[in-house]
Amino acid sequence: MTVKRDPAQDDCSIQRTLDVIGDRWTLLILRDVFRGVRRFSQIQSDLGIAKNLLTDRLAALVASGVVEKVPYQDRPVRHEYRLTDKGRALSPALVALMRWGDEWCGDGDAPTELVHTPCDTRLELQPWCVVCNEPVAPTSISSRPGPGRHLDQETAHAAT
Amino acid sequence: MTVKRDPAQDDCSIQRTLDVIGDRWTLLILRDVFRGVRRFSQIQSDLGIAKNLLTDRLAALVASGVVEKVPYQDRPVRHEYRLTDKGRALSPALVALMRWGDEWCGDGDAPTELVHTPCDTRLELQPWCVVCNEPVAPTSISSRPGPGRHLDQETAHAAT
Repeated sequence: MTVKRDPAQDDCSIQRTLDVIGDRWTLLILRDVFRGVRRFSQIQSDLGIAKNLLTDRLAALVASGVVEKVPYQDRPVRHEYRLTDKGRALSPALVALMRWGDEWCGDGDAPTELVHTPCDTRLELQPWCVVCNEPVAPTSISSRPGPGRHLDQETAHAAT
Repeated sequence: MTVKRDPAQDDCSIQRTLDVIGDRWTLLILRDVFRGVRRFSQIQSDLGIAKNLLTDRLAALVASGVVEKVPYQDRPVRHEYRLTDKGRALSPALVALMRWGDEWCGDGDAPTELVHTPCDTRLELQPWCVVCNEPVAPTSISSRPGPGRHLDQETAHAAT
């Protein structure tokens, strides 16, 4: 895709996203929570992450509203971490990262295949244009300033 | 999405992907290259990244085959960094990360809108099932062991 250079870092949604989930451990923790690995001890043993690091990352994910800490028993009180709507909305991004790894970082064979449950078809993550009713190729993606672009940045110029 | 727990870290394509692009600076550098910011000095000033860090990250991206170093002039020789096919294949993942940031990390207004060039429609990144010919909801994604799953991991059990 080609995107015009934006001089204001704060106005880049990719950076905003990375501010929340850009950390490598954070993404691996999210991967586990999507898989149903929701409890501190489970995640800690699954990832082999230091407890202080896991505590920090989970606290940040709760603070950013991506996961919520929910009690699953009373005596003694025990908690697990569950995805919020904001967290579940990360699914397309995680699917895209996984599919890229399948195709380009391994031997070409997917260790785990994501499937569309209703038809059990291997999932193809494909940007789709609902107007043209066709898949969107990376080369047919361009950009324009959006409503969130500040007026004083309209002078932003293409970098090439 | 729900994905069965896989005890073998090396067999997770998300981790394989993060091994290549999981670093925050690396993703910001890729964002710039997708935008057409391809030269060391341009990227360095655009991101405000220390030169030694940028040198390290670009060398890693070249080593992993995501970008290639291409001369754009002879006297003196000057290079720029261009996406390879492997790098261009990251487009869906970057689009997904950007759209999530638009929706959940800002004020809801996109600083930059990605559009489908042929029809100038704002791009919707939507997993699409070509069999059912319908969008795939996160809740209708499940998983199964793929061809790359090692036999000795078939005993992997669901974490919940």
